[in-house]
Amino acid sequence: MNDSILPQPVQQVIDDLGRLPGIGPKTAARLTFHLLRQSKARTQQLSRALLELKEKVIFCENCFNISETPVCHICSSPKRDHSLICVVSEPLDALAIEKTREFKGVYHVLNGEMSPIDGIGPDQLKVKELENRLKDQTIKIKELILATNPTTEGETTALYLAKLAEPYRVKVTRLAHGIPIGGDIEYADEVTLMSALAHRTAFTA
Amino acid sequence: MNDSILPQPVQQVIDDLGRLPGIGPKTAARLTFHLLRQSKARTQQLSRALLELKEKVIFCENCFNISETPVCHICSSPKRDHSLICVVSEPLDALAIEKTREFKGVYHVLNGEMSPIDGIGPDQLKVKELENRLKDQTIKIKELILATNPTTEGETTALYLAKLAEPYRVKVTRLAHGIPIGGDIEYADEVTLMSALAHRTAFTA
Repeated sequence: MNDSILPQPVQQVIDDLGRLPGIGPKTAARLTFHLLRQSKARTQQLSRALLELKEKVIFCENCFNISETPVCHICSSPKRDHSLICVVSEPLDALAIEKTREFKGVYHVLNGEMSPIDGIGPDQLKVKELENRLKDQTIKIKELILATNPTTEGETTALYLAKLAEPYRVKVTRLAHGIPIGGDIEYADEVTLMSALAHRTAFTA
Repeated sequence: MNDSILPQPVQQVIDDLGRLPGIGPKTAARLTFHLLRQSKARTQQLSRALLELKEKVIFCENCFNISETPVCHICSSPKRDHSLICVVSEPLDALAIEKTREFKGVYHVLNGEMSPIDGIGPDQLKVKELENRLKDQTIKIKELILATNPTTEGETTALYLAKLAEPYRVKVTRLAHGIPIGGDIEYADEVTLMSALAHRTAFTA
């Protein structure tokens, strides 16, 4: 986009939106012109919501998930099993697991995955904080579910954490791999299929 | 997304972003969590830019393109040919034509296209305002380029405007159809190809 053609406030919004992940300059322009057309109240509402997002949302000091309170509602709930920690990379991963309504333990959000190429090691993640939770004698951790992504970075992180957990004699598990339910075997990738075969389960009619 | 799982300010931004065109709930969530991670200054900047967008950007009272001044810089430029009006549906279309740097005339932004199904007729568009420009004797309009989209709505609008312009004895033209430059004939749709054949041009080596 050329500065001389568009009014500066328009160009500014296009530039700012274009910096968001997955939004290119064309999409940013389309969104901006949509905002120009819609009511002033709607745009003001979005503007205010963005400010409140940064002002009101903090990270839980225990699990580092997003929260409105210093300790999040999951970490402070007596209904959750605090001896079972599910380790995830991002708050969105915790959200996905929460939505199953099956998990009754608590979380630990690493805020990323190890990626030596990008200079992200354990010190850049909430790894030390996880170790402190393992060390802490007030709540004895029984199991650590390593729910990092099934990618190189996620696997590297899981391996590192499994090693880290060894001295604490805690059960370490990893999410099962396999064919997604409702998925088509024909379209499953080889690695997933190999894993699904290797971990096949007994089946009785 | 479930309200009880996410903090309200996070859900609010997801909802507001999800109302934008082309952004579904998954993308909205991804963008929101990206905003949560990025610096507070960046998000504040976006929030401010959105406010300024609605405060500083107005519509030109002559051509209805976006502008920072009551009359836009194109309508007020003595370097442009004010007898040549390019009629477009949206400011983005005018922007696309401006980027060619070939067009020396002025614009008229209709702010939509006629679509009887959606209840959009000439009264919902800046059609009366275009007629006023044709009537105006101070600037004699010589040519009207109907650059509405090559869709049913765009063609309907162009036909309507062509009829409207008849009494004013102004030359009415429409953008040429054909194979896009760099495009592949194999992938061109039939209608475009038919039009490209019908309007084939003389070629000399």
